[in-house]
Amino acid sequence: MPYFDAASSAPLHPVARQALLASLDEGWADPARLYREGRRARLLLDAAREAAAEAVGCRPDELVFTPSGTRAVHSGISGALAGRRRVGARLVVSAVEHSSVLHAAEAHAAAGGSLTEVPVGRSGAVETAAFAAALDEGTALACLQSANHEVGTVQPVAEVAEACRAAGVPLLVDAAQSLGWGPVEGGWSLLAASAHKWGGPAGVGLLAVRKGVRFAPQGPADERESGRAAGFENLPAIVAAAASLRAVRAEAEAEGARLRALVDRIRGRVPELVPDVEVVGDPVRRLPHLVTFSCLYVDGETLLHELDREGFSVSSGSSCTSSTLTPSHVLRAMGVLSEGNVRVSLPAGTPEGDVERFLDVLPGVVAGVRERLGAPGPATGAAAGSGSLVVDALGRRCPIPVIELAKVIGEVPLGGTVTVLADDEAARLDIPAWCEMRGQEYVGEEPSPNGGTAYVVRRLA
Amino acid sequence: MPYFDAASSAPLHPVARQALLASLDEGWADPARLYREGRRARLLLDAAREAAAEAVGCRPDELVFTPSGTRAVHSGISGALAGRRRVGARLVVSAVEHSSVLHAAEAHAAAGGSLTEVPVGRSGAVETAAFAAALDEGTALACLQSANHEVGTVQPVAEVAEACRAAGVPLLVDAAQSLGWGPVEGGWSLLAASAHKWGGPAGVGLLAVRKGVRFAPQGPADERESGRAAGFENLPAIVAAAASLRAVRAEAEAEGARLRALVDRIRGRVPELVPDVEVVGDPVRRLPHLVTFSCLYVDGETLLHELDREGFSVSSGSSCTSSTLTPSHVLRAMGVLSEGNVRVSLPAGTPEGDVERFLDVLPGVVAGVRERLGAPGPATGAAAGSGSLVVDALGRRCPIPVIELAKVIGEVPLGGTVTVLADDEAARLDIPAWCEMRGQEYVGEEPSPNGGTAYVVRRLA
Repeated sequence: MPYFDAASSAPLHPVARQALLASLDEGWADPARLYREGRRARLLLDAAREAAAEAVGCRPDELVFTPSGTRAVHSGISGALAGRRRVGARLVVSAVEHSSVLHAAEAHAAAGGSLTEVPVGRSGAVETAAFAAALDEGTALACLQSANHEVGTVQPVAEVAEACRAAGVPLLVDAAQSLGWGPVEGGWSLLAASAHKWGGPAGVGLLAVRKGVRFAPQGPADERESGRAAGFENLPAIVAAAASLRAVRAEAEAEGARLRALVDRIRGRVPELVPDVEVVGDPVRRLPHLVTFSCLYVDGETLLHELDREGFSVSSGSSCTSSTLTPSHVLRAMGVLSEGNVRVSLPAGTPEGDVERFLDVLPGVVAGVRERLGAPGPATGAAAGSGSLVVDALGRRCPIPVIELAKVIGEVPLGGTVTVLADDEAARLDIPAWCEMRGQEYVGEEPSPNGGTAYVVRRLA
Repeated sequence: MPYFDAASSAPLHPVARQALLASLDEGWADPARLYREGRRARLLLDAAREAAAEAVGCRPDELVFTPSGTRAVHSGISGALAGRRRVGARLVVSAVEHSSVLHAAEAHAAAGGSLTEVPVGRSGAVETAAFAAALDEGTALACLQSANHEVGTVQPVAEVAEACRAAGVPLLVDAAQSLGWGPVEGGWSLLAASAHKWGGPAGVGLLAVRKGVRFAPQGPADERESGRAAGFENLPAIVAAAASLRAVRAEAEAEGARLRALVDRIRGRVPELVPDVEVVGDPVRRLPHLVTFSCLYVDGETLLHELDREGFSVSSGSSCTSSTLTPSHVLRAMGVLSEGNVRVSLPAGTPEGDVERFLDVLPGVVAGVRERLGAPGPATGAAAGSGSLVVDALGRRCPIPVIELAKVIGEVPLGGTVTVLADDEAARLDIPAWCEMRGQEYVGEEPSPNGGTAYVVRRLA
């Protein structure tokens, strides 16, 4: 049963499993104790720290283990902001950071700090110049992911780190998606990552803080992990995390090249096999194992369920698959289609045959979902005189507003307009994205008198 | 090799190990995902929560898993304080809480909150009336451990909970040391615990917050664990924690009775076998598996090392075994001797023979340490006229000041005084404790002109 969601959580690497088992017996005692079980635990912890620091590219005393990648990000951001409180209270982040960064940023803003989100282009990458321009004299910290978790686009971290260095601002890199593939290049100041993303166990993150970076840990502390991560160390899992990081790094070059080719195959074949698909993210500067595409006129949740029935586990940034019913902030920031969104992230070892079977199955699954959605009864749009039409999709969930728009666009003459009334949040992203894909003109939106929003589209093609 | 420090961390219970192994294969995926691996993980998480809630005695939706007991305590205290911010900013804790509680209390005080420490008696227990008297109209939260981690004394939680209820103050119980032995009785409002104390794996704590308790989680949150514990769930460890809690509970009555008898044997035999020992903590209202005693004229660190050489792993609250060179705050609050302190906490399954061998070995080890310390060269005390002596122990570490005092007390007449000059922090606790044990009068302390403190003792016996 192919699991194609490694970016959420990777299955445990065999080396992680072995190391975990061994250290369950050797590493359960308190490494702060002086007796032999404690000394043995301390040796294991020290060795794990050295291995992890080598993989990260920092000194062992710059690296602490945290209970998760999320905690590493939260502690890193709050500690760096507090350490530079005298400089200012501005936090600069890219618009496509992981939710753990954005939650920490929201908490900072709620506490009176200021926040700048640097926008991204259609590929999902920030522009170094735009990032640099956001850094001002009162900037305490900047955050940039090494690679995006939803679309795989690699960020220009080394260039942004250089810009940060020039501005005297520390840069925190969320390396959760990329650390298994290689170290983060460039002069970053802080780095956070999560073991279960590289095939390590859950319950382990890491936070590196370069010597010389002002850092004031927040919240109650204890004597563990240099006062930066309170609570008894999760030692067997830490040992397994470090061992598996070393193992995946040893395999990274060969496995990365293999998965890159499989992803290239998906990127190339999906638009050939499935009509009306947008493959998003940078085709070249990207993670080896991850690809995201969106299918017009498709409901993401149904698509996921159908793929699950066929044995494929994937995730989606569509609004219908989120608990808040809003599309992924990443797709929104990129300005790309969010409906029928599928993220495929291949775990190490994925056989080529699984990818081929996915490509065999996908066209039929998408067609089936479209067929069911495309027959919702007669169109609810009413002709409103020559050259313009109004489609009332109020109360209808994504992708229905876009489907209704597509159904009637041929009924207005070239230069005529279709106005779509909709209250589903995804329409704000998907109607302009549809226009872009279809070569139609997106005129704009205005509040609709009966609630919701009126989206105006001019027929050009 | 007998490991007698279960109160620090218990070896992994076989059931925990089994459950961990099984859920490494079944429970590595994200329980928030909709595909089969995610649904399977969600089922495991739900089942673990139900099992843990049953053992705690709360509803499953009142309980969240945290990355450690420390994090459960920190989150519980900060959330409860914030939830009752309008009521007031007073936090009431016992003086013998675990450091995680005291660190959270210090953070609260540092942020402008007020803090009341309720003292304990010589057994280590709070008095309910004194605890109740500390609760005022501005009290946002009270904290009391179920049982003390250093001396084993069980606190009157049910009575204190009743007093808190009468005062309208929520009570947080740190149940880390007792949850494996049974549920916490009484009407507590919040409860925290740590899996590796009951034979579960590291990396798992739990926090229960009763419905109706005002609670506002602090720090950045995400959608996991009801917004009360951010970060990817450490699922295999959570499953193992819940399974082992159930397992140790099934064995608790029989194993508790057996260990209670072994501890009674230690409590009875140690003072017979080793001269000048004080066994501390309540002899009856106590944890089944834990006993603490202190040995006059003994250096705790050397004692630990010698016991380790003999194969016994124990811990100590002596100043020389702490990184801050101060005696345990618990022993200090109880006003008992801290030098030569040994805590024995027996893991489940400890064979009787191990305890007997410990009793065989202990007298010789203590005598050896005393012999070495008792011959530090000629006494540095100088006769200062009739009836009074001054001992200069400045710069000498515990237990030397007490040893020097004991050496010269016979040189002054009954009613005469010995003044000990010392700058080791432990002397403040251990000189009065020595007087109590020896039937001498502790007159008091005053600053010494040459630095340090002058402790005055009157000879009565």
